[in-house]
Amino acid sequence: MKTQQFVVIGLGRFGSSLALELMDLGYEVLGIDRDEEIVNEWSDKLTHTVVADATDEEVLKSLGVRNFDCGIVAIGNDIQMSILAAILLKDLGLPMVVAKAISVLHGRALEKLGVDRVISPERDMGIRVAHQLVTPNLLDYIQLSKNYSIVEMNVPECLNGKNVGELHPRARFGCTIVAIHRENGVIVAPTAMDQLKTGDIMVIIGSNENVEEFEMMVNENIS
Amino acid sequence: MKTQQFVVIGLGRFGSSLALELMDLGYEVLGIDRDEEIVNEWSDKLTHTVVADATDEEVLKSLGVRNFDCGIVAIGNDIQMSILAAILLKDLGLPMVVAKAISVLHGRALEKLGVDRVISPERDMGIRVAHQLVTPNLLDYIQLSKNYSIVEMNVPECLNGKNVGELHPRARFGCTIVAIHRENGVIVAPTAMDQLKTGDIMVIIGSNENVEEFEMMVNENIS
Amino acid sequence: MKTQQFVVIGLGRFGSSLALELMDLGYEVLGIDRDEEIVNEWSDKLTHTVVADATDEEVLKSLGVRNFDCGIVAIGNDIQMSILAAILLKDLGLPMVVAKAISVLHGRALEKLGVDRVISPERDMGIRVAHQLVTPNLLDYIQLSKNYSIVEMNVPECLNGKNVGELHPRARFGCTIVAIHRENGVIVAPTAMDQLKTGDIMVIIGSNENVEEFEMMVNENIS
Amino acid sequence: MKTQQFVVIGLGRFGSSLALELMDLGYEVLGIDRDEEIVNEWSDKLTHTVVADATDEEVLKSLGVRNFDCGIVAIGNDIQMSILAAILLKDLGLPMVVAKAISVLHGRALEKLGVDRVISPERDMGIRVAHQLVTPNLLDYIQLSKNYSIVEMNVPECLNGKNVGELHPRARFGCTIVAIHRENGVIVAPTAMDQLKTGDIMVIIGSNENVEEFEMMVNENIS
Amino acid sequence: MKTQQFVVIGLGRFGSSLALELMDLGYEVLGIDRDEEIVNEWSDKLTHTVVADATDEEVLKSLGVRNFDCGIVAIGNDIQMSILAAILLKDLGLPMVVAKAISVLHGRALEKLGVDRVISPERDMGIRVAHQLVTPNLLDYIQLSKNYSIVEMNVPECLNGKNVGELHPRARFGCTIVAIHRENGVIVAPTAMDQLKTGDIMVIIGSNENVEEFEMMVNENIS
Amino acid sequence: MKTQQFVVIGLGRFGSSLALELMDLGYEVLGIDRDEEIVNEWSDKLTHTVVADATDEEVLKSLGVRNFDCGIVAIGNDIQMSILAAILLKDLGLPMVVAKAISVLHGRALEKLGVDRVISPERDMGIRVAHQLVTPNLLDYIQLSKNYSIVEMNVPECLNGKNVGELHPRARFGCTIVAIHRENGVIVAPTAMDQLKTGDIMVIIGSNENVEEFEMMVNENIS
Amino acid sequence: MKTQQFVVIGLGRFGSSLALELMDLGYEVLGIDRDEEIVNEWSDKLTHTVVADATDEEVLKSLGVRNFDCGIVAIGNDIQMSILAAILLKDLGLPMVVAKAISVLHGRALEKLGVDRVISPERDMGIRVAHQLVTPNLLDYIQLSKNYSIVEMNVPECLNGKNVGELHPRARFGCTIVAIHRENGVIVAPTAMDQLKTGDIMVIIGSNENVEEFEMMVNENIS
Amino acid sequence: MKTQQFVVIGLGRFGSSLALELMDLGYEVLGIDRDEEIVNEWSDKLTHTVVADATDEEVLKSLGVRNFDCGIVAIGNDIQMSILAAILLKDLGLPMVVAKAISVLHGRALEKLGVDRVISPERDMGIRVAHQLVTPNLLDYIQLSKNYSIVEMNVPECLNGKNVGELHPRARFGCTIVAIHRENGVIVAPTAMDQLKTGDIMVIIGSNENVEEFEMMVNENIS
Repeated sequence: MKTQQFVVIGLGRFGSSLALELMDLGYEVLGIDRDEEIVNEWSDKLTHTVVADATDEEVLKSLGVRNFDCGIVAIGNDIQMSILAAILLKDLGLPMVVAKAISVLHGRALEKLGVDRVISPERDMGIRVAHQLVTPNLLDYIQLSKNYSIVEMNVPECLNGKNVGELHPRARFGCTIVAIHRENGVIVAPTAMDQLKTGDIMVIIGSNENVEEFEMMVNENIS
Repeated sequence: MKTQQFVVIGLGRFGSSLALELMDLGYEVLGIDRDEEIVNEWSDKLTHTVVADATDEEVLKSLGVRNFDCGIVAIGNDIQMSILAAILLKDLGLPMVVAKAISVLHGRALEKLGVDRVISPERDMGIRVAHQLVTPNLLDYIQLSKNYSIVEMNVPECLNGKNVGELHPRARFGCTIVAIHRENGVIVAPTAMDQLKTGDIMVIIGSNENVEEFEMMVNENIS
Repeated sequence: MKTQQFVVIGLGRFGSSLALELMDLGYEVLGIDRDEEIVNEWSDKLTHTVVADATDEEVLKSLGVRNFDCGIVAIGNDIQMSILAAILLKDLGLPMVVAKAISVLHGRALEKLGVDRVISPERDMGIRVAHQLVTPNLLDYIQLSKNYSIVEMNVPECLNGKNVGELHPRARFGCTIVAIHRENGVIVAPTAMDQLKTGDIMVIIGSNENVEEFEMMVNENIS
Repeated sequence: MKTQQFVVIGLGRFGSSLALELMDLGYEVLGIDRDEEIVNEWSDKLTHTVVADATDEEVLKSLGVRNFDCGIVAIGNDIQMSILAAILLKDLGLPMVVAKAISVLHGRALEKLGVDRVISPERDMGIRVAHQLVTPNLLDYIQLSKNYSIVEMNVPECLNGKNVGELHPRARFGCTIVAIHRENGVIVAPTAMDQLKTGDIMVIIGSNENVEEFEMMVNENIS
Repeated sequence: MKTQQFVVIGLGRFGSSLALELMDLGYEVLGIDRDEEIVNEWSDKLTHTVVADATDEEVLKSLGVRNFDCGIVAIGNDIQMSILAAILLKDLGLPMVVAKAISVLHGRALEKLGVDRVISPERDMGIRVAHQLVTPNLLDYIQLSKNYSIVEMNVPECLNGKNVGELHPRARFGCTIVAIHRENGVIVAPTAMDQLKTGDIMVIIGSNENVEEFEMMVNENIS
Repeated sequence: MKTQQFVVIGLGRFGSSLALELMDLGYEVLGIDRDEEIVNEWSDKLTHTVVADATDEEVLKSLGVRNFDCGIVAIGNDIQMSILAAILLKDLGLPMVVAKAISVLHGRALEKLGVDRVISPERDMGIRVAHQLVTPNLLDYIQLSKNYSIVEMNVPECLNGKNVGELHPRARFGCTIVAIHRENGVIVAPTAMDQLKTGDIMVIIGSNENVEEFEMMVNENIS
Repeated sequence: MKTQQFVVIGLGRFGSSLALELMDLGYEVLGIDRDEEIVNEWSDKLTHTVVADATDEEVLKSLGVRNFDCGIVAIGNDIQMSILAAILLKDLGLPMVVAKAISVLHGRALEKLGVDRVISPERDMGIRVAHQLVTPNLLDYIQLSKNYSIVEMNVPECLNGKNVGELHPRARFGCTIVAIHRENGVIVAPTAMDQLKTGDIMVIIGSNENVEEFEMMVNENIS
Repeated sequence: MKTQQFVVIGLGRFGSSLALELMDLGYEVLGIDRDEEIVNEWSDKLTHTVVADATDEEVLKSLGVRNFDCGIVAIGNDIQMSILAAILLKDLGLPMVVAKAISVLHGRALEKLGVDRVISPERDMGIRVAHQLVTPNLLDYIQLSKNYSIVEMNVPECLNGKNVGELHPRARFGCTIVAIHRENGVIVAPTAMDQLKTGDIMVIIGSNENVEEFEMMVNENIS
């Protein structure tokens, strides 16, 4: 199977971070930016880099952008350029076009223009950090659906030495510890006998409401 | 218990998104920004808002910032202001100071100055999106540690109707399906008899390597 | 029947000229511009004028823009604002949205976003003037289709006193004089006996090729 | 006969569109602009292009501009440059000097300086579009004189299948259908028996008042 | 006789100096400038002052500018404003319009537009100072025609005590001393017996060539 | 005798006009300006031209400026540069340093720093033009002292054919006609029999008061 | 005796620090700055503060600046304003005018204009810090003349417990310890029996050369 | 012993003055500035100079900055750059890092980041000059501790010819004359018989209070 090829337009913080991670995951990345200095900074870290205006159709064609598997419009602050570049990528027929939006209306424009996925890094990360701040032990979480979440949480001092049976999360809080991660591995679907220790990370699944109650219990015991 | 109080300095995309989410979660938020227009935009959505220069110690004192539980420096692009505001929040004695960094060196400065948590939304979201792009079924993931992840994934067409036993993920890929989420609820720790259906979301835990193999199997069957 | 209502966004040269003409034709016009000075200039010449940011959805709603019959986005040079304003007008459900494009790509974006009619005044007028320059007697013309035109032309010195039969345009050039306009009226479908005089304007219809031959004959006799 | 030569000063939207159309019509065009990037964009589409300051008399002389048949000052927004370039073209003795005006006062200055024709693309197109907006079937029109117009109009649904005699435009509205254009040609001076069909374009001549009444009749039947 | 009224547009160094001198000479002056600060500076030194845009015809009309005897366009550096203001003053029908030019081409434009007198202060003063520099005793001079000048010159040390007869300027240099100015008055048309003294100023008339020879003689005796 | 050498700093309108006149008068001129474009414009019209910062002492020394006979600081609008350049020229020991002042305070500074002559072209020309405007026949004038002037004046229609004796200027106005200039030469110290003609220029000397009375008489007879 | 009054023009870092210290020493200070924000910051810390342009003579007069005992021109970066303000203060007749220079040439201009004392804080402090850096024990120093200095120095570890006689500075290094400062006072002109201790500060006087040798001895013993 | 090496970042007034003095004192200095023009100015006066961005870690490493003995961050006005450069120097492990602060908060940030010495030239010099202004005879002073100072003072007219015994400073003012400096040398620890003369400089030590009393006595006798 041919390695997938990505073109990333705009090598600011978001674009360059995305491009580097794609390189790390073993894919090929063409990075495009108008700013020569920025392009120089990334030229030896990506498969190819080009100083170009991504709203110039001829330029995109001459770079063979139409043959890429996915295009990411990661342009920082210039809504006009972002929109025009997204149109060009769609018109060139890329199977997947992703674009970063910097305002609600910008996002709406991108969706109307047929962009396959619109991303709002600052907004999304704001929400994510808010959750982490109000639950000091919370490390990360996945919103499974509107009602269910998985959360990754430090085992607090107050639970040290207790086994899962004692804690009884399903009965008391309606949520389940689906895994315990500790230094030397992961205990999947722990039994009632598995013991929690400070330093462990537990993964809990449940309805949002139940998970929040569980979090609160943990927080209050601590602070 | 008194409601926790947060002060958010800088109401750009990241700061405002974080502040709004904190409000939604039931906390009190004081929003500060130098830009009057921006403050007006959020004035009726946060507990309090103030047009102020967050590098003016007298101003922060007169706002009673020292009594807040947590300060978030969400200043957009001005490293100098971000650093000076972070120093002031630390000196005022807030128990928790979080700050957004816009470059590696900025992040290092914030850490040296004693900021409790440094966040890089653009960089982090770039990494997260890279993963989602290369695994079309991947919805979200949590990096449990350097070696283990939990991933949330759509059940692909090719697995429709198969039960967990047939798929045999632990034996074949060394990873475990810890939950299946479908419209009417969550099946925690599914048994070999539980059947996967298109539309379901499965939650898988395993070493990064194993999870990636599993993802690849799923992708290849589809595309 | 209720008078039709138009909202014109952007009161620069194009927008204000269009708005004034609509007023002259007896319609109601709401003019919107971000620039207070410009709005003041037109405030007593249009039905209503407002200083507002046309990319602020709340503002457009509060102005009742959704009830207008037609919206014209006549924003001068700011492609971003033009695109965002056009989206809002479309989303508010106006039956007709017209927008001015300042580049080919801008025009394409507007079309993709569902704008009903895209106008390029500078480009269109450039083409029109080119035709008039190369045919000094040409006053104006309509391109009926790719192949046929109607042209309005001064009767040149060399045709003064000739009657239509002598000129014999259909036989010699394959085109027809459909009307002769002179001071005291219009002769529609002139007969072979109708006489041309300097000062008359003749209206000719034919294939582009034939009309050009006719023009050339006229020009060469003169210069 | 020697091909006519045009010099176009300012290759913005209006100037470049005019220059390209002149090329298409088979004339020679020298394009001048101060901006190197713009000149490069048009260098292989016009006979000659030069990066030059059109207010430097020596430059215009060395380019042999005095030998051109017509000069068009299509400078975008800089009234000063437009005026000074127009003076130089007139002083160099070009037989025809055309200039674009961007305000009423600018137009007056150009006329006083002896410019042969002053054009206001944005204003003229604004007026033209206004007419088209209020008459949805109107495609284009020519203002023959202060009182008479020719209009080009789609045949509306309500007239489909009617013949010209039935419609009786001269009697009812005082205006004449001078031509019907359909896919396979043009019917000049249609008789009472010629039938109108949806998809046809009819060309009508009459006094402004009569034509407007006709338009209104057509519009009301439709909407 | 009614006092003459002048309107001065632009109150920079040239305009304000001219306006003040007109006031000193007993005339009425209306000063107009766009810059409020500048207008305030002169408001109590001129008959009237107004903060206004002199290219706005309505403004000039409402100020009654049409009734003034003379308009001076003394706008500093903005050729566009200078030209447009000059057109308006001419169109308003002022009997005399004077304008300052800042380049040769600007001067040509003003003349073409019908300005009655075009002034180039910097250029003229440059020429005047050059003459004074090369003839240290030269105080001032008038160029009567292309060939004749009057010069005002200090009596140098070397001529102290000589009488006009001894100096014999007409015979030796072909130029005449038409006046001697000393502390207590002027000796017009001095005789051969009139004695020159250091401190006197002599006024000499002659052809340029002769006057220059005379100057040279004087200079060489000194330095 | 060695040709005198001048260095002119600042080649704007005043400086270049002065430098050119010095060249015309047969002197050597070194022109210095910071702006390369301006220097290129004058490079083949002056003896030497240099692109240099005239406030850099080393630069002035390396150009041998200390050996020049006279330095003129003709810097346009930058008071700081003007002052610093003047100091350097004085310190380098030039026998004569002249500088242009653009405000009263600037002039005072230059005088305190020892500049030999301070010139204010805009102010002086403003005064001169004021006089000419109020006396339409006045061509030029020299202020001999606070009380006496020489004026150059067209002979008005009303004096045509009169001889000097008739006019009797000394008796009636206390001023003397010292010369009459006409096409074919100058009449110095005209007698009572010399006749004035339209087209002549007369040179009058007298006290300011007397000269003004004379002017007024002339003006009133005409207008 | 009346309290001395100082006027400080420019309240930047240097000016405000100087003004505050004068207040602390019991004098009256009028602070002037063009920047309203800066003036507000100091308005309750100085006797009087005014927002004013210090190059406007009328303003300075109306503030009664002529009656102050000393004027300090502490303007930050604007050489022009600094020079013009200094001229005005001198002309107003203040007995003492001090001004800050930001370049060598600026300093020269100020001296020529008669400023009594020219200060170069950045340059002087650069020199002072250089000395302290190369002599880690050096705390401060006074340059008595070109050849002699007084230095203030920590007593290094290696001299702890030695008495002055043992150290024998005059014989070995040709310099004298004129004082020893320790927590509870100062020993002036210490005798050979006075003992040095870590923590003491010794004050040494001598020729520069000798003092440097002494410093070197001390440094080498330590590092 | 190897010559000590200093790296100075920022070659403005403070940085260049410090660097030059270090060169004069015989040390090696690497000067870094972003501005090429500034670097050229100092390139032949310092051991090495480099145009570089001091916040680019790779650049600093490649310059071998880690091997220098001391780094001075003398960046003029850019707090951000100053902070980031200081962090890098500290992280590179330089034994001594000194930085200039331009505000109190900037100074606090530098201290928190571990900078060994923070300098405020403008503020310190402001204080020093204030003291000198209020004591006209004061030449310089050292603040030994919070309570004690050494001052260097001109011997005023009123003390001319008096010997130290007569003056009796210790008894009357509690302070001691530790040295008298005159043209031909220094008298250390003068005796009661040593005579003071105008032109001498005396060095006095004492408590601040006593020294001020002494100063006042001297001042009052004079003025």
